[in-house]
Amino acid sequence: MIVSALLTSVGINFGLCVLFFTLYSVLRKQPSNYDVYAPRLLANGESHRRSHFNLERLIPTPGWVRRAWRHSEEELLASSGLDAVVFMRIIIFSLRVFCVAGIIGVFVLLPVNFTGDSLQDVDFANLTNDSLDVFSISNIENGSKRLWIHFCAVYIVSIFVCYLLYNEYRYVSSKRVDYFLSSQPQPHQFSILVRSIPVSVGTSISDSVERFFTEYHPSTYLSHTVIRRTSKIRNLISDMQKLYKRLTLLRTEPTRPKYERYGFCGLFRRRVDLVDQYEKKLEDLEDNLRLEQSVISLAGEFLYVNVIAYLFIMFFESKEVRAAFVSFKSRFSAATAFHMQQSNDPTHWVTEQAPEPRDVYWPFFSTTFMERWISKLIVILACIVLTVLFLIPVVFVQGLTNLDQLEIWFPFLTSIASVKVISQVITGYLPSLILLLFLKVVPPIMWYLSSIQGHISNSQIERSSCDKVLWFTIWNVFFGNVLSGSVLTQISILLEPKSIPGKLALTVPAQASFFIAYVVTSGWTSVSTELFRIIPFFGSLITKPCKSPDDEFEVPPFPYYRDIPRLLFFGLLGITYFFLAPLILPFLLIYFCLTYIIYRNQFINVYEPKYETAGKLWPLVHNSMIFSLVLMHAIAIGIFTLKKLPEATTFIVPLPILTLLFNEYCRKRFLPNFTAYSAECLVKKDREDHDEDAMAEFFEKMATAYQDPALLPVQFSVNHDSHSAPLLSSPDG
Amino acid sequence: MIVSALLTSVGINFGLCVLFFTLYSVLRKQPSNYDVYAPRLLANGESHRRSHFNLERLIPTPGWVRRAWRHSEEELLASSGLDAVVFMRIIIFSLRVFCVAGIIGVFVLLPVNFTGDSLQDVDFANLTNDSLDVFSISNIENGSKRLWIHFCAVYIVSIFVCYLLYNEYRYVSSKRVDYFLSSQPQPHQFSILVRSIPVSVGTSISDSVERFFTEYHPSTYLSHTVIRRTSKIRNLISDMQKLYKRLTLLRTEPTRPKYERYGFCGLFRRRVDLVDQYEKKLEDLEDNLRLEQSVISLAGEFLYVNVIAYLFIMFFESKEVRAAFVSFKSRFSAATAFHMQQSNDPTHWVTEQAPEPRDVYWPFFSTTFMERWISKLIVILACIVLTVLFLIPVVFVQGLTNLDQLEIWFPFLTSIASVKVISQVITGYLPSLILLLFLKVVPPIMWYLSSIQGHISNSQIERSSCDKVLWFTIWNVFFGNVLSGSVLTQISILLEPKSIPGKLALTVPAQASFFIAYVVTSGWTSVSTELFRIIPFFGSLITKPCKSPDDEFEVPPFPYYRDIPRLLFFGLLGITYFFLAPLILPFLLIYFCLTYIIYRNQFINVYEPKYETAGKLWPLVHNSMIFSLVLMHAIAIGIFTLKKLPEATTFIVPLPILTLLFNEYCRKRFLPNFTAYSAECLVKKDREDHDEDAMAEFFEKMATAYQDPALLPVQFSVNHDSHSAPLLSSPDG
Repeated sequence: MIVSALLTSVGINFGLCVLFFTLYSVLRKQPSNYDVYAPRLLANGESHRRSHFNLERLIPTPGWVRRAWRHSEEELLASSGLDAVVFMRIIIFSLRVFCVAGIIGVFVLLPVNFTGDSLQDVDFANLTNDSLDVFSISNIENGSKRLWIHFCAVYIVSIFVCYLLYNEYRYVSSKRVDYFLSSQPQPHQFSILVRSIPVSVGTSISDSVERFFTEYHPSTYLSHTVIRRTSKIRNLISDMQKLYKRLTLLRTEPTRPKYERYGFCGLFRRRVDLVDQYEKKLEDLEDNLRLEQSVISLAGEFLYVNVIAYLFIMFFESKEVRAAFVSFKSRFSAATAFHMQQSNDPTHWVTEQAPEPRDVYWPFFSTTFMERWISKLIVILACIVLTVLFLIPVVFVQGLTNLDQLEIWFPFLTSIASVKVISQVITGYLPSLILLLFLKVVPPIMWYLSSIQGHISNSQIERSSCDKVLWFTIWNVFFGNVLSGSVLTQISILLEPKSIPGKLALTVPAQASFFIAYVVTSGWTSVSTELFRIIPFFGSLITKPCKSPDDEFEVPPFPYYRDIPRLLFFGLLGITYFFLAPLILPFLLIYFCLTYIIYRNQFINVYEPKYETAGKLWPLVHNSMIFSLVLMHAIAIGIFTLKKLPEATTFIVPLPILTLLFNEYCRKRFLPNFTAYSAECLVKKDREDHDEDAMAEFFEKMATAYQDPALLPVQFSVNHDSHSAPLLSSPDG
Repeated sequence: MIVSALLTSVGINFGLCVLFFTLYSVLRKQPSNYDVYAPRLLANGESHRRSHFNLERLIPTPGWVRRAWRHSEEELLASSGLDAVVFMRIIIFSLRVFCVAGIIGVFVLLPVNFTGDSLQDVDFANLTNDSLDVFSISNIENGSKRLWIHFCAVYIVSIFVCYLLYNEYRYVSSKRVDYFLSSQPQPHQFSILVRSIPVSVGTSISDSVERFFTEYHPSTYLSHTVIRRTSKIRNLISDMQKLYKRLTLLRTEPTRPKYERYGFCGLFRRRVDLVDQYEKKLEDLEDNLRLEQSVISLAGEFLYVNVIAYLFIMFFESKEVRAAFVSFKSRFSAATAFHMQQSNDPTHWVTEQAPEPRDVYWPFFSTTFMERWISKLIVILACIVLTVLFLIPVVFVQGLTNLDQLEIWFPFLTSIASVKVISQVITGYLPSLILLLFLKVVPPIMWYLSSIQGHISNSQIERSSCDKVLWFTIWNVFFGNVLSGSVLTQISILLEPKSIPGKLALTVPAQASFFIAYVVTSGWTSVSTELFRIIPFFGSLITKPCKSPDDEFEVPPFPYYRDIPRLLFFGLLGITYFFLAPLILPFLLIYFCLTYIIYRNQFINVYEPKYETAGKLWPLVHNSMIFSLVLMHAIAIGIFTLKKLPEATTFIVPLPILTLLFNEYCRKRFLPNFTAYSAECLVKKDREDHDEDAMAEFFEKMATAYQDPALLPVQFSVNHDSHSAPLLSSPDG
């Protein structure tokens, strides 16, 4: 790539960013867009839809930037929880790393590279026509002593990153403890999830749980909730919700036709009152639902009085899952039960920490130990296959979209395609558009795969899919571009670990200009579309005519599994390329500055946390950074070998080893705090609950905290006249 | 190797075995050898030294074989503990595997190989001059359909081994639980070891422990014992023991000179009473010891009354180690404290299960978390270096011992070496003798390395060195022979995992005859020398003149770390070679039959357990077998590729994957039972302790159970006249 091409790309994307910023600054002030740009404020009642028109509304103002900037970490913690704080720490961490790396890169490495003379002499007058390679390490001749500067830069940045990683790990870890110590008593602190409950013939799961825990945890056991399969009920409820929505629409909008005519070719027409019809349907559904709910509840609680009852239960028992939430009288005893193997057979009575009630992922509760293990293996296999073979169908589809092929399918294109610009757009942008669309589908697929892996909470699913999307991105975007060639070649490289650094050293620097452009196009644009919320905005534009203004709207949760991998991937690009092509660093810094402001703004206005893991996602960030460092070291080893500086190769070898040892130390020093709280913490916290009345009340509430929301009473039909929300407890309520 | 050479080797070693058996059968009946061949019975008073002479003593009888055969597993459990039972299970397991593999190998694969025609036609009349290769897979021509028989054999044996492994794991695991449930209350069940205890200025470690556990485990904490550095005291005691021995010798043997003359050239001689002199020395040492002991005890228990006392303690505080044994009121609470992270900083208050008091390895108690971590890393590195580079010095030393070199150093050899037989012996046997001597040194070195790794108990050290010796043997004996060539070539093979099966397939079958001979020479001989106890026997012969017959003698503990790796290595040889060269199987079967009888006999007569881990070594056996299977599969993949049967290669690939999955399942299903007991077990066992008086007495005793034996009062000097043992509590008392 030549300099002018990069400048063009920067120009276009800078323009796009400015456009999106301006549009956002104006559109966010339009009351009709409040549900897109400030759903959170709207839901909290801090913003009102109807306000009087004034001219200021049409002038873009940067007030939101100031507000986002001023929002302190404490405020963020209070409003969006520790997870949001930890997310912002990723950005702050990256900013710090790339500030230092940027200073070294731009003021030291860039001049050194530029004044190298491996490539043809640089023509200052005609700089824009030069290849970007003059700014990269490729411009340094073999065996040059200047490479020691790069060597030092690698050491300095590695040490600095490790130092920051250590500090951040300690900071997040202490924040986690503080968060726990300052929290109110919450059901999940007192509960565990027990799976693979063995049941003997003639006893129910509930009895089995009761007997086991009163036997082995007599002084601390409090209560339990057996989990039931409620997919049928869930479907019923969603049908009812749809019906209820339509009904409300009919009632509130006087312009809509309330009658429908049935008949044959206009003959024998009969006017049917739609409202009546819908209400009747709704009542039927409600009856159905109540029956289902009672059957499920009965199956668990029915006493084995006689044979008929027994058969009745046998028939419905499949509704019960061999899993239960078990609550204890103190946090310490819940932790004890979680940490210890309960039964002599470790595959029975498998314990897990309970998630927050609002975080439970009800639809999927796999049962036995073996089932979960096998489904996990299958999911891992599916992920590997998807990750490794992803590019094959993409390339195939891209092949189908060459112009000749398209002209055969859509003959009318022939005339349009004769216009040169249009044909260029089609051939140039269509393949990358297809790749982009395929890539957009990946996070949801990974989310789905994680959800069938046997995780019990949304947060676990999200963390697991975060991991999967990250490795997918690294493999397909980084290695897919670097080791271009068939998939099998890529895999065969993994089977020859010795040759990896050499191969990387050859191919990674060659892709430097591609990744600089990638940061500008993909990075800058993605973050400004995040601000502009392009899909929700157009979605709202389209659905607005069919919606009543008082309609319920959802405050979206933050899509960690989509955005964290992206941030981490840009971190990986920065760390691996900072000494190869330091030109990437200014663009990365701009990217991280943008994300810093924009995500803060979005946390204030848009996203509301649906659960709180208290920063459990940090270890993923740490691991990804360590991987980036070791990859960078591998490339450095290859580069120094290639550039014929064997001493540097020798002296760089200890660096990845030390980095991995550092990682191992961090794992021992901090990771345990991210899986469970210490005895010290738990006992301290338990001692705080001295108000006995309040605790008694809390324990009473806890008995029903893990009730499946599908089993709560739902009523739509009675509130004929009030427009208030139905009596439905949503999972996050 | 040709058949006749193998037959010669078998003949020689069979002769040696018969010789050792006969010698053993006679010598064991001589009262003077009781301390070599039946120290255990002697110590238990079941055998008496002095019996009247009769002729029967000089006739070899096989009575001991019958007795060993009849000894049931229950009796073994009662007399030698679960560890011995588990050790015998390794042999039984191997016997079962190689019975089935042997039937398949000898009756199916051997005829198939023999009738192959890849090598020259077999001359039945002159069989003994044929190469052993006619019995191996090398005799099957490429692409032959007969290879499918080998393919089936690989599948059948793999499945059979996995089936047996599963059963054995379950059996040992259930035995472990039974053992625990039937055990008496023991101090280690109620205790944990706490390390890395943080201490603030002005408080002692003891105070710190007391405060922490009364704070966070108020209802269950019982007592603690801080660990102290006692190497100086230990030295004093060993000096005293030596002196005491000499003294006893002087007193009991009237023939010895009791006086010594000092003087100058025989002039001015003065008779000195040696007994008096020794007693005086002993008393001095005792005074010294008591002072040291009181200082150490004071350092821990002194109250901070005034500045002088404080300074006094500061001076001696370095004697205290930041570790303590902490005891609880129930097994369940001890397990709770072990399983949970105690402090917010996971590197402080690190808990571990306490070993049996007699099992504690007192000399080495590394202190801080970092120190232990670093020492562990260094030990691992040292082991890897020792394992990988072991052959270099050996080859170097072997090079020095060629005849020409020796003749230069020892000129008198020139004349002897001219005799052909002697020169052949020197050149033929000396190098292998040197290798053997080097190999003999490895287990003690590994034991030493494990001991400085930070393990707290002899059993942990033993298990850890078992592991190290096993991998050492596999690398140096198996891969060292198979991948002959420089060490660097061997390592570089590991860096190209793809080429491993191919390389193995080329080189492993070529070494078949070597390993058949290895089983016969090393295996048969090692097990018969184990029976004959060659080193203790000659040791006793040499030291007998200097010993009084009533001298204390030690009953040796079983050297698991020396013998288990050997058994497992023969298992590996059998599994990897059974389909390549089935001729190895009959020899292996004979080896395992011998070990079965001989080790049973040794458990009855010779070895006494010094500690009980309740079968914790089984996972090592399981892992080693899984490794053998996967290695065998890798070789099979290579062989089928080499023999041009690609379908078989394809169909064999799932086998290692399935084996590893099976291993993973076993890890989940059984391994947790080998690290800790379940809550179910612990609560059941705690409930059994209903006799309150007995428990109160037990708890009282427990307070001093983890007292360092070096700190117990020792007295040698007063018992002038009685010949009873001194008042010394040995670590295993």
